[in-house]
Amino acid sequence: MKSFIQYSPESDFPIENLPYGVFTSPNNIEKHIGVAIGELILDLNVISHLFDGPLLKSKQNVFKEEKLNAFMALTRPHWQEARATIQKLLDASNPTLQNDSDLRQRAFVKQSDAQMHVPAEIGDYTDFYSSLHHATNVGIMFRGKDNALFPNWKQLPVGYHGRSSSIVISGTPIARPYGQTLPVEGADPHFGPSRLMDFELEMAAFVGGPPTALGQRVTAKEAEDRIFGLVLMNDWSARDIQKWEYIPLGPFTAKNLGTTISPWIVTIEALRPYVVDNFPQDPTPFAYLRHDDKFNFDIKLEVDLKPENYPAATTICRSNYRFLYWTVKQQLAQQTVTGCNLRPGDLLGSGTISGEASDSFGSMLELSWKGTKPLRLLSGEERKFIQDGDTVILRGYCVNENGARIGFGKCEGKLLPAIPFDD
Amino acid sequence: MKSFIQYSPESDFPIENLPYGVFTSPNNIEKHIGVAIGELILDLNVISHLFDGPLLKSKQNVFKEEKLNAFMALTRPHWQEARATIQKLLDASNPTLQNDSDLRQRAFVKQSDAQMHVPAEIGDYTDFYSSLHHATNVGIMFRGKDNALFPNWKQLPVGYHGRSSSIVISGTPIARPYGQTLPVEGADPHFGPSRLMDFELEMAAFVGGPPTALGQRVTAKEAEDRIFGLVLMNDWSARDIQKWEYIPLGPFTAKNLGTTISPWIVTIEALRPYVVDNFPQDPTPFAYLRHDDKFNFDIKLEVDLKPENYPAATTICRSNYRFLYWTVKQQLAQQTVTGCNLRPGDLLGSGTISGEASDSFGSMLELSWKGTKPLRLLSGEERKFIQDGDTVILRGYCVNENGARIGFGKCEGKLLPAIPFDD
Repeated sequence: MKSFIQYSPESDFPIENLPYGVFTSPNNIEKHIGVAIGELILDLNVISHLFDGPLLKSKQNVFKEEKLNAFMALTRPHWQEARATIQKLLDASNPTLQNDSDLRQRAFVKQSDAQMHVPAEIGDYTDFYSSLHHATNVGIMFRGKDNALFPNWKQLPVGYHGRSSSIVISGTPIARPYGQTLPVEGADPHFGPSRLMDFELEMAAFVGGPPTALGQRVTAKEAEDRIFGLVLMNDWSARDIQKWEYIPLGPFTAKNLGTTISPWIVTIEALRPYVVDNFPQDPTPFAYLRHDDKFNFDIKLEVDLKPENYPAATTICRSNYRFLYWTVKQQLAQQTVTGCNLRPGDLLGSGTISGEASDSFGSMLELSWKGTKPLRLLSGEERKFIQDGDTVILRGYCVNENGARIGFGKCEGKLLPAIPFDD
Repeated sequence: MKSFIQYSPESDFPIENLPYGVFTSPNNIEKHIGVAIGELILDLNVISHLFDGPLLKSKQNVFKEEKLNAFMALTRPHWQEARATIQKLLDASNPTLQNDSDLRQRAFVKQSDAQMHVPAEIGDYTDFYSSLHHATNVGIMFRGKDNALFPNWKQLPVGYHGRSSSIVISGTPIARPYGQTLPVEGADPHFGPSRLMDFELEMAAFVGGPPTALGQRVTAKEAEDRIFGLVLMNDWSARDIQKWEYIPLGPFTAKNLGTTISPWIVTIEALRPYVVDNFPQDPTPFAYLRHDDKFNFDIKLEVDLKPENYPAATTICRSNYRFLYWTVKQQLAQQTVTGCNLRPGDLLGSGTISGEASDSFGSMLELSWKGTKPLRLLSGEERKFIQDGDTVILRGYCVNENGARIGFGKCEGKLLPAIPFDD
């Protein structure tokens, strides 16, 4: 497949990818749905009339929306038809868009000129905890090697409800939070800026398909039609606040200070060439969590840390989405097992994705092993946790044995100093 | 104050109350915003042109919406002007609505003819854990008397993010969920219908005011303008599922099977005559959690349980909102302390409200003391937890020394048998 749009072989956004996002541009402050192609965005609002396939001909209005929810609320065959239509329109052999200079002028925007936005109204956001190595690492640090994993961990995808309002798009700065901590066990708590700010390398799935009814379960076998696509996610975490507040109801203000996602939703269709075996599961999970097909993906993940006054970023983590123990189908089945209803646009975070190797750990907590093994940056500085002015950049991409490559772009955020608290 | 609308002195909805809700009626399937008065609803959509005060004259469109969010997003002076306008229009001495027979005909709907709906788009729902007696009871049952309260409990209002999608309006049936449980400690988990279904007697506050920015804290002292009003809430809980899943990230599928709220939002303005002293707090909380004014309310709460085949309900719990240790201002301050942004329509659950007396406990878990002290119903049956076919009805009302009374109506839900799981 070859597009009439030129791009480098290293591009995250070849014609085989076609991820969806929402953008504004200097010429248009109204939010439009677009698809990334090379260094450009194809504006679907402008070409909505070209979706003339049997399923979408009567649904062109979904491409005129300011969010992706209406498109997500359609079915997988609709998504497949949309992808096929866009691929056809961008193909080097197709004149429709290529040779219509007026339309072409209006339909493409440079990514460098655009401002990206959170691509969907996220009704509910759930964060799972599905990396065996991450859960084990955290367990060892806090409870010792023998009690690292809780007994429920291999029986169900442990997760919790997160905060939707504070999910922000890549590039949004995050302020170091104030909060309560307990610096000395058994002493009085302290109120002040968090001293242990961390990132978490995650990916997150947008839920698609029509809303489900309260009481309706979606088993892992049925989950396929409910998963629209994936983004990168940085689940910023104030470790010291988390430790003091999380018993017994889980993380709360330590996490709702901001969660950054990458702007481009890479669809499951685009990821299919990179499918790999699921992580081996022992014990065999209950039937509602079982599915026979492969639904794990070889997505290479990297985290860069760039200090404020140094030009180069240091890659501090190399991990992979395939390290997840539980698949996103299983996460979705767990989400709905007691009858919780889904809405298109819901977001399911994977949990921090750590591999076995110590440079594949997806958080500073693990990389610096609770601050005991500082990381050395290219600047010569050391890091145990994230410092003010540091920018954290998550990247993700797939390359298969044929050299075919698609990517997720970047999920980036800079940590700003705490905003002083004046009582 | 006297209205030209007639109602009983026992009515929950006198002219001093004027709670807001969203309804449809047989004559109108479009959702309208209304105010309860006696046994009627005043349709604000129909009378939106009568909001002619200085603040609302240019904002009448908020009463034409299908949800309360736009009205909530205004400021407290707007809410006060709306209340004053409605009170004036309903006053026995005012002819505007009273004597305009055409308008009056269109503006009033019988509550018995109306279907109520969730009154706002709930962007995020948080559930707190703010009753000292409830937290202590649960602590004693699970950890013994000496370790009942965790050390953070009196330092901050412990809370967690809940699920917005599964919040339903009073009257919606709830199906007993399937899920994983661990009937025997150390043995294999079990998958099947929950055997320990419970209610939780709560109240919940709708957040109002303009959205806040990410990073913006709202201290307890500043919280006043952010609290729109209160509803009753039943936080249905599958105790056996909860116990197995909640470590270490908190309740998840045990709670997202359905959360029932009452349809009428009683405003803080209406509750002011029933203000009482705050619960004494020791230790003194940090400055961001302190406020000097009273912001606790004498709201009498009752829970009725009605078995399927018996005509009478048994009142199984008599509690009071005033038993909460943390005020809703303090809850809001905790919600935002690390910079989490608020959106109008967010919901803050109080947590189960239990008093000191054993008949004031707000859940079956506590009332039956983990099933060891079954309750006897008027039907002669016993209950340890909720059985299929049982209807749980929460009621709340205020009466002050002058006999002035306002109420919250009912928050009702019936537990249906589990929907069989076919793999």
